Amino acid sequence: MQRISTTDADFQAIFERLIDRDAPGLAEIDTRVSQIIADVRQRGDAAVLEYTRTLDRRPEADQAALEVSQADMQAALDGLATEDRAALEAAAERIADYARSQKLVDHSYEDDHGNRLGQVVRPIERAGVYAPGGKAAYPSSVLMNTVPAKVAGVSEIIMVSPTPDGLRNPWVLAAAAVAGVDRLFTIGGAQAVAALAYGTETIPEVDKIVGPGNAYVASAKRQVFGRVGIESVAGPSEVLIIADGTGEPEWTALDLFAQAEHDEMARAMVVSPDADFLDRVAAAVEAMIETQPRADIIRASLSGQGALIATRDMAECVALSNRIAPEHLELAVDAPWALVEDIVHAGAIFCGHRTPEAFGDYCAGPNHVLPTGRTARFSSALGVYDFQKRISVVEASADGAAHLAPIASRLARGEGLFAHAASAEARARDS
Amino acid sequence: MQRISTTDADFQAIFERLIDRDAPGLAEIDTRVSQIIADVRQRGDAAVLEYTRTLDRRPEADQAALEVSQADMQAALDGLATEDRAALEAAAERIADYARSQKLVDHSYEDDHGNRLGQVVRPIERAGVYAPGGKAAYPSSVLMNTVPAKVAGVSEIIMVSPTPDGLRNPWVLAAAAVAGVDRLFTIGGAQAVAALAYGTETIPEVDKIVGPGNAYVASAKRQVFGRVGIESVAGPSEVLIIADGTGEPEWTALDLFAQAEHDEMARAMVVSPDADFLDRVAAAVEAMIETQPRADIIRASLSGQGALIATRDMAECVALSNRIAPEHLELAVDAPWALVEDIVHAGAIFCGHRTPEAFGDYCAGPNHVLPTGRTARFSSALGVYDFQKRISVVEASADGAAHLAPIASRLARGEGLFAHAASAEARARDS
Repeated sequence: MQRISTTDADFQAIFERLIDRDAPGLAEIDTRVSQIIADVRQRGDAAVLEYTRTLDRRPEADQAALEVSQADMQAALDGLATEDRAALEAAAERIADYARSQKLVDHSYEDDHGNRLGQVVRPIERAGVYAPGGKAAYPSSVLMNTVPAKVAGVSEIIMVSPTPDGLRNPWVLAAAAVAGVDRLFTIGGAQAVAALAYGTETIPEVDKIVGPGNAYVASAKRQVFGRVGIESVAGPSEVLIIADGTGEPEWTALDLFAQAEHDEMARAMVVSPDADFLDRVAAAVEAMIETQPRADIIRASLSGQGALIATRDMAECVALSNRIAPEHLELAVDAPWALVEDIVHAGAIFCGHRTPEAFGDYCAGPNHVLPTGRTARFSSALGVYDFQKRISVVEASADGAAHLAPIASRLARGEGLFAHAASAEARARDS
Repeated sequence: MQRISTTDADFQAIFERLIDRDAPGLAEIDTRVSQIIADVRQRGDAAVLEYTRTLDRRPEADQAALEVSQADMQAALDGLATEDRAALEAAAERIADYARSQKLVDHSYEDDHGNRLGQVVRPIERAGVYAPGGKAAYPSSVLMNTVPAKVAGVSEIIMVSPTPDGLRNPWVLAAAAVAGVDRLFTIGGAQAVAALAYGTETIPEVDKIVGPGNAYVASAKRQVFGRVGIESVAGPSEVLIIADGTGEPEWTALDLFAQAEHDEMARAMVVSPDADFLDRVAAAVEAMIETQPRADIIRASLSGQGALIATRDMAECVALSNRIAPEHLELAVDAPWALVEDIVHAGAIFCGHRTPEAFGDYCAGPNHVLPTGRTARFSSALGVYDFQKRISVVEASADGAAHLAPIASRLARGEGLFAHAASAEARARDS
């Protein structure tokens, strides 16, 4: 794991390389995905079935085999160990509580001229949720992408999740049951995204597609954006831990492992003005890494993208954090709230020694779908608001119309749009 | 202008063609834009200058010539007629008032275990605003894209607006002054979007780019999305007017003209159960169209995409509207609020006979940047919230950590993520 310091002569260059998130060109994937989308759009189910038979190795797949029944989802939930089911339900309830706290509502006000101005809020009608299948199947991801949609009041949630070799993951089915998924199809990849965007004989067309996936899924989401909504295109996951040296080095090491075990491209960093603490973290990493079931992935990730960065002071930690705009930010410090006010870019902040990112990944309540790769500069966690739309509403009073008409007319004439001016002026006259 | 009825035998087919918004493939534009972006990214100012000299016919352009000073913006504002300046300032103030009413704020709550959960809200740091230049220069668009950013607290607003042949539009400069634009560069097209996304020696890199533009600008925004945020990719503008027959046919005709005069691709439709009212609208259109300064554009737009649709009843009007998901929806009826509750998709609703879309285009307050082409199914008006980010914040108490740890651990083990489990479990133990 890389050890650097902000006082190193070449720090800026090393740091820039560390935070450079530009993915290499994926032109080949884009081209292939674009063909798949066109194919699904044109041939519908026939194309989806072909890709599913080949890519997911399911030669038996027909249209009926694509859908999982509500009974099968419920059976998967009933089949879980009692404590596992309780954990799933507790997490769903906490995610729903948090979503309810953020729900957008109608509001309006009257201006001085009696005009009413405001917004009415409507849920998206039909949402599509992509959940990876096979080995990397994440029930937590099903909950995080689905529960806010449910709280928003989405009428119908269509989930897709591939089952390579026909193997269904019981956790994923159980999570779909807990979340209240309306229909679940065992398809994946770009063909599943295309089917949700354009609809087929079997798969309903949706209004927005959310959920993580591989490079093909990401490319497909990007390509259908505009036809349907998407929440974001996620890159590798990341954590930055700001440590003041008051914490347990072993806890910090475990948090690095938790991030690094996702995959080889995951990114985990610690910044601290306490070089001695960083030494102890490095020692804890060394001491504990071999006991980790996913040690190989952790080692690859930490050696590739990990870093322990010594800073001059806490202010420099915050400044570096704001340049990184991390997806996850742990404030492993005694007085976290004093730092929160200076944080301008982050997906989610985990405050204090007792709040590891893992709580947020599963059950604290806030969503684990967060902006990666410095996109926290301009975007936010997935939330109930991603499944709601604001419709502006204006109602002019007679007095208000008389006030607004000359303003609109002046500006319209300035733009050379004379019918706009006439349309506005007419409302200031008696009818 | 097309006259159809929901009772026509072929109504569904005609209606589907009317609302089909799929743009023809723009692969050539995408390829050209992708080259421009790569070029600007690599060569910076040199590339931007080259494109500006050629495409905007400004052989004299050098780096200094790209920027408009604050003094020049202020001079443009001072140069406007008193009433024009007052209109611009009144519109800006109303847009700001509305934006303030929608501003996101911090909030948090404590759960039963003493965990604190919530969000802190931060403005985007640097926003880029694209404003078309040349003949189709819209000061209202400058206000609509910039004022909400200002209200959000964006630190720096960088505006770009091309000046073909070096001609500066005084209205656009004046609007930039009113809105408080920090820096204004006279560049446009894909090269301007690329410069804002990647930065050059002269043009600062921004976090989000908003604002309308031609097909090259739209393609560029789509291609840099992810590197920076974008608000949306706008298609042709549209209005749907639901009329119960109680209004003035001449007002409805003017509202159709106002929409149609934008460009040949603009789309204006009326739906009404009152066939006689539709006849009177058609007659008013015929009677008044020749007097319109932009009659040619209006005629092309109305004959190409306009329609007067007779329905069985008002409920059918609402149902058609929800299928269209119009950018602008006028409720030209006596009791608009009774209909509002049934509207599920629209960008903005204009209630009652005295509220033409033109009020919303300029000065009512709500934004005129609205979802087009059925994207109101999943997206909303541009607003102050587009320039704000929500950062989730979690702080676990000791008791709360003891409650969350076993839930997180169960789920993590279900996903095979053992370091996540260990990281969570550690927080339930004494340190």
